[in-house]
Amino acid sequence: MFNTGDKINLKFVITEEVYNGFIFIFKDNNPLHTDAKYAAGKGFKERVMHGNILNGFLSYFIGECLPTKDVIIHSQQIDFSKPVYMNDSLNFEAEVEEIFESVKVVKFKFTFKNNEGKKVAKGSIQIGLT
Amino acid sequence: MFNTGDKINLKFVITEEVYNGFIFIFKDNNPLHTDAKYAAGKGFKERVMHGNILNGFLSYFIGECLPTKDVIIHSQQIDFSKPVYMNDSLNFEAEVEEIFESVKVVKFKFTFKNNEGKKVAKGSIQIGLT
Repeated sequence: MFNTGDKINLKFVITEEVYNGFIFIFKDNNPLHTDAKYAAGKGFKERVMHGNILNGFLSYFIGECLPTKDVIIHSQQIDFSKPVYMNDSLNFEAEVEEIFESVKVVKFKFTFKNNEGKKVAKGSIQIGLT
Repeated sequence: MFNTGDKINLKFVITEEVYNGFIFIFKDNNPLHTDAKYAAGKGFKERVMHGNILNGFLSYFIGECLPTKDVIIHSQQIDFSKPVYMNDSLNFEAEVEEIFESVKVVKFKFTFKNNEGKKVAKGSIQIGLT
């Protein structure tokens, strides 16, 4: 079902709906995310979107986009390297990095790239097949 | 402002509102999270909550609960060790693990424990002071 080197590509957009919903649920109103002037004062062109919105996209990737639904996340890791802004269209690519057949574990590495092709985040996610 | 060993304790509850909101935003309807019978068939007592809801709580912790708002997340890592269920009350504890003063970086380690005192997740998160 999985082979090392397999790739899955998805596109995610941080819309107003995603951004507002994330704040409504998690109450992170840090000014970097909510105050354009503050963000500009820190050297960013606009409000910076919450990095953990990308982790929500990972939930969708694992839960909905694999060849099987019988999965559970064991662990994940993400590095945020560039800011993501409202309505940025993110190209997500995940690759099967390792398969541990005896324990039914699959490890992916992934990247998110923005409209300009710049990598905004990368990381890895390990799942169990249930 | 930060000292190694400093601890911050918070409580988080995965309410229906948080759960429904997370699914509305991120569209992860994997049966493990949405179908009690399916979850039971996999050995869980109820629907398992999305692990990435805990990452949303981390966003709140970093954005809203530190002695300064002038922060940005660099990277984070989480291991999920036990299932979390609807309305579980999670005791979160973060501890300052390392401070890199010259580059204005602070690294926390954290745990989430459930009502029964069992660790359901642990990890680390590294931030920059802006």
